[in-house]
Amino acid sequence: MKIGFIGLGHMGSGMASNLLKAGHELTVYNRTPGKAQALFSQGARAATEVADACRGDVVITMLSNDDAVEGVTFGDGDGKGGILASLRAGATHLSMSTISIALSERLAAAHAKAGQRFVAAPVFGRPEAAAAGKLFICAGGPPDAVETCMPLFQAMGQSTFRIGDKPQHANLVKLSGNFLFATVIESLGEAMALVGKAGIDRHQYLDFLTTTLFPAPVYKTYGSIIADGHFQPAAFAAPLGFKDIRLAIAAGESLRVPMPLASLLHDRFVRLLAQPGGEQMDWSGIGQLAAQDAVGSGA
Amino acid sequence: MKIGFIGLGHMGSGMASNLLKAGHELTVYNRTPGKAQALFSQGARAATEVADACRGDVVITMLSNDDAVEGVTFGDGDGKGGILASLRAGATHLSMSTISIALSERLAAAHAKAGQRFVAAPVFGRPEAAAAGKLFICAGGPPDAVETCMPLFQAMGQSTFRIGDKPQHANLVKLSGNFLFATVIESLGEAMALVGKAGIDRHQYLDFLTTTLFPAPVYKTYGSIIADGHFQPAAFAAPLGFKDIRLAIAAGESLRVPMPLASLLHDRFVRLLAQPGGEQMDWSGIGQLAAQDAVGSGA
Amino acid sequence: MKIGFIGLGHMGSGMASNLLKAGHELTVYNRTPGKAQALFSQGARAATEVADACRGDVVITMLSNDDAVEGVTFGDGDGKGGILASLRAGATHLSMSTISIALSERLAAAHAKAGQRFVAAPVFGRPEAAAAGKLFICAGGPPDAVETCMPLFQAMGQSTFRIGDKPQHANLVKLSGNFLFATVIESLGEAMALVGKAGIDRHQYLDFLTTTLFPAPVYKTYGSIIADGHFQPAAFAAPLGFKDIRLAIAAGESLRVPMPLASLLHDRFVRLLAQPGGEQMDWSGIGQLAAQDAVGSGA
Amino acid sequence: MKIGFIGLGHMGSGMASNLLKAGHELTVYNRTPGKAQALFSQGARAATEVADACRGDVVITMLSNDDAVEGVTFGDGDGKGGILASLRAGATHLSMSTISIALSERLAAAHAKAGQRFVAAPVFGRPEAAAAGKLFICAGGPPDAVETCMPLFQAMGQSTFRIGDKPQHANLVKLSGNFLFATVIESLGEAMALVGKAGIDRHQYLDFLTTTLFPAPVYKTYGSIIADGHFQPAAFAAPLGFKDIRLAIAAGESLRVPMPLASLLHDRFVRLLAQPGGEQMDWSGIGQLAAQDAVGSGA
Repeated sequence: MKIGFIGLGHMGSGMASNLLKAGHELTVYNRTPGKAQALFSQGARAATEVADACRGDVVITMLSNDDAVEGVTFGDGDGKGGILASLRAGATHLSMSTISIALSERLAAAHAKAGQRFVAAPVFGRPEAAAAGKLFICAGGPPDAVETCMPLFQAMGQSTFRIGDKPQHANLVKLSGNFLFATVIESLGEAMALVGKAGIDRHQYLDFLTTTLFPAPVYKTYGSIIADGHFQPAAFAAPLGFKDIRLAIAAGESLRVPMPLASLLHDRFVRLLAQPGGEQMDWSGIGQLAAQDAVGSGA
Repeated sequence: MKIGFIGLGHMGSGMASNLLKAGHELTVYNRTPGKAQALFSQGARAATEVADACRGDVVITMLSNDDAVEGVTFGDGDGKGGILASLRAGATHLSMSTISIALSERLAAAHAKAGQRFVAAPVFGRPEAAAAGKLFICAGGPPDAVETCMPLFQAMGQSTFRIGDKPQHANLVKLSGNFLFATVIESLGEAMALVGKAGIDRHQYLDFLTTTLFPAPVYKTYGSIIADGHFQPAAFAAPLGFKDIRLAIAAGESLRVPMPLASLLHDRFVRLLAQPGGEQMDWSGIGQLAAQDAVGSGA
Repeated sequence: MKIGFIGLGHMGSGMASNLLKAGHELTVYNRTPGKAQALFSQGARAATEVADACRGDVVITMLSNDDAVEGVTFGDGDGKGGILASLRAGATHLSMSTISIALSERLAAAHAKAGQRFVAAPVFGRPEAAAAGKLFICAGGPPDAVETCMPLFQAMGQSTFRIGDKPQHANLVKLSGNFLFATVIESLGEAMALVGKAGIDRHQYLDFLTTTLFPAPVYKTYGSIIADGHFQPAAFAAPLGFKDIRLAIAAGESLRVPMPLASLLHDRFVRLLAQPGGEQMDWSGIGQLAAQDAVGSGA
Repeated sequence: MKIGFIGLGHMGSGMASNLLKAGHELTVYNRTPGKAQALFSQGARAATEVADACRGDVVITMLSNDDAVEGVTFGDGDGKGGILASLRAGATHLSMSTISIALSERLAAAHAKAGQRFVAAPVFGRPEAAAAGKLFICAGGPPDAVETCMPLFQAMGQSTFRIGDKPQHANLVKLSGNFLFATVIESLGEAMALVGKAGIDRHQYLDFLTTTLFPAPVYKTYGSIIADGHFQPAAFAAPLGFKDIRLAIAAGESLRVPMPLASLLHDRFVRLLAQPGGEQMDWSGIGQLAAQDAVGSGA
């Protein structure tokens, strides 16, 4: 398929690479051009502006936040040069970024009005999973448009969950998933602060948990990071994690669903980001705050 | 081995049965005698008072709270008739109940003074797992005393984690584990309230989660209960879950470890128990409170 | 002084009236024109568009949220017709609305660039206080611009606190003040749920508190509303209170100040607004939620 | 009146002194005898054991916690030497300590059974107020017994609130009052962390608040301590404040009243007490934790 790909960060570059491997024709665009070299050697074409990436059947956006997706979609103040102005009728904007419910709804409406199709398909997985084509994908949008994208999902992920015809539902599932992940981090942080201060070995404790009660990769991954105290380099940076929790809370605000646990996580992230070096930490850095309180280092 | 078993509730009766199957000689005691019939037909002897259950090498207590364990151990006001007064020197009190760190320390000290041995080995698993001999066990105490109990653990559980020589460490692991479980319940409750109010099917959502990001039995078990809204009959009753969260917070108080997530769970349980029928619900009933808030049923 | 006044809601109409009484020449503008009749009979001139209210020395905005203030300041898409385009150089935009720190900073920068002056002077007090000229005012901005506005503040308020030359500081004081008020509401709500369920008369209890430990009007006002259960009609509506708590949290986010108590209030407002009739309630309606939980009405 | 007084700490010594000034005949008892010298010179008699303080019409207990009150009331293991065993029939045990609802109920029942009277009359005020006879007193118990104590209350306090015939109601009012005080501390801590980090002078801010919106002594007292950062010496030590919040939560547990704000305060105290020197701080030390988070000192 003829595809444009916008956004070549930690996640996007691996995803684009897998599309190339699967035989798709790719035109890639990144704000800072240097990032695409490896993809060019795999056969990707370079787009010098957003519009160049919008000539095919599908244009994929994989960007870090609402502002970035809004920018490339709606273009400059005059609307020129954005995806909306550049994509042909019937073609699909496939948004794989983690964005707000509100923006997803706005994009769906704008593309529909322009005779274009919009699919939201955010992904779960860290950069290694993106590189390995092992992402979990949750896709929402008009059934035929989602159908069109299925070969792309197969190239990028290990399984795809079709949530129905509302793109924003896919975004909500993504936000709720990151909320659940962050909850695991916080709960492990508190539990390990407790047993650790009592004198129990935290690695042994974690080993017990993950071989019995909580045999899920998320407990192993984050539990190890917390037990080791190795929050750098960040696989998923704290400011991005904070953004997602804020978006989950924002979704709860507009749907009128109070989420006290999400609020607790919110406050943990604000605190982490206030600390020296906090911006550069992995989001699992919130898992060390309970231990900080327990050792009284704040005094 | 010659064993006494005190406490034949949902959990204890299954555990005692597995000890009999493994060929141990069992004398069982329960405050309300009727419960032991099935065990008698398996060959158990009836104890008419606590002391009768203390004639062997090991006496196991599997009771619902601190007061009950304190009562059978220290006996009446005059100290007569309790385990402490009845157990021979060198024999072992194996406490498998979920009790406080403080009581565990007190029991360890009292038995040591009496020349007896004390092992704490609380268990993870619901009544079905107890009946099937599939419990996870965490054991703490003097190495030789724990060694003595290993054949019993093998009869009752699928694996045993030896946490070291401090009995109270085993109790702390148990409390921290129930804290982690309750966290999963609360997080699923909030996530499902959010996606459910948006119009996403909660069973499909759960199916996605548990086949991808959270492939752990605890997410399936509690997620299903919440999605179905079936909080009765209780496999683990809300008052018991509340007790365990209180004990985790109490451990955090004495160790000086603030646990804001545990406090959130605490408040959820108080609220659940204030509702009509709350006392009879499964502890996963706290997983419906976020949805209650979202639908505004409290108005 | 020659003044424009934009925004004639519950608060603005009382404030404008006091300016007229003090002898100022007023041109008033409201999106829905009918509201100004009483002011016309006091001598106010009608503005048919925003620009008409910008011919004097000072134009005051007293609007309900960021969007409204942004709209009248920056005008339509083309920027025409807004305060920024209409105000003469050297004249002052006096913003008395409760708005975000971020918007206040943006307004200050835009007016400075246009050679105009910007003062933020949000007010404390309910509509009765606005009508009586008894508001408390907190003013921030360039000293000479604030000086210019002092006679206006004297007409509208009982005292003015000059916070310095940064307009956004005045807005932050306002947001923090509403946070403190909401805290009083929540704390009284919990305390009265507790003593009330024990069987203590809530009015007697409140009488004791406010004649001894907490002799501040805020405790009397909100305590009575909660004890009476009279949350309607709203003097300050729940959605506005919610907005202010969100703005306080947003200020905390950008300044990196975690505010767990503000998060608790946030969740209370989301819950209140999910209830039937919640949007129409006074913001003190959050003070009934603890009692709802205590009686278990949510079951 | 002939009175015994047990407990001569910061509060009790001032209270006893005022009883002597009012002409009452006082026999005083303290675990550590040295403390009573000043009272002896005022005419107090020394009791060498608890029973010596129980020969009059009323015996007052003013002790630091449940254990202490339980100890002097019920005496040793054999019950000898306690107030219960020593007080004549018809005489009154006047408990002015801040104790749990549960203990207050137990004391009331025990004294009733022994033909004695029990009044709970906890006090509000710091040691200066105790010395000046300016305490606020909340009294509960049988009307005739409370009536008997009225002259004593007049000697020690500036006003007495009679809550009715249930002693534990007086204790609940006391606990709820301390909950409200701690709420003020926490809210000022968060508000000042916010405005302080923005660059606003915290003393000026506090001055504005306390001369306008919050003209109550509690805001001035605690606001100044937080703005100054002077949490030592403690007028009311953090462990005592923590105890009271725990008792408020315990009352909420047994009455089934969830108090999320009390839980937040609970966690603040655990954190404060984990810090070096935390045990010696004034309870208002929790008011510095928000600022600690804001400056990121925990990293």
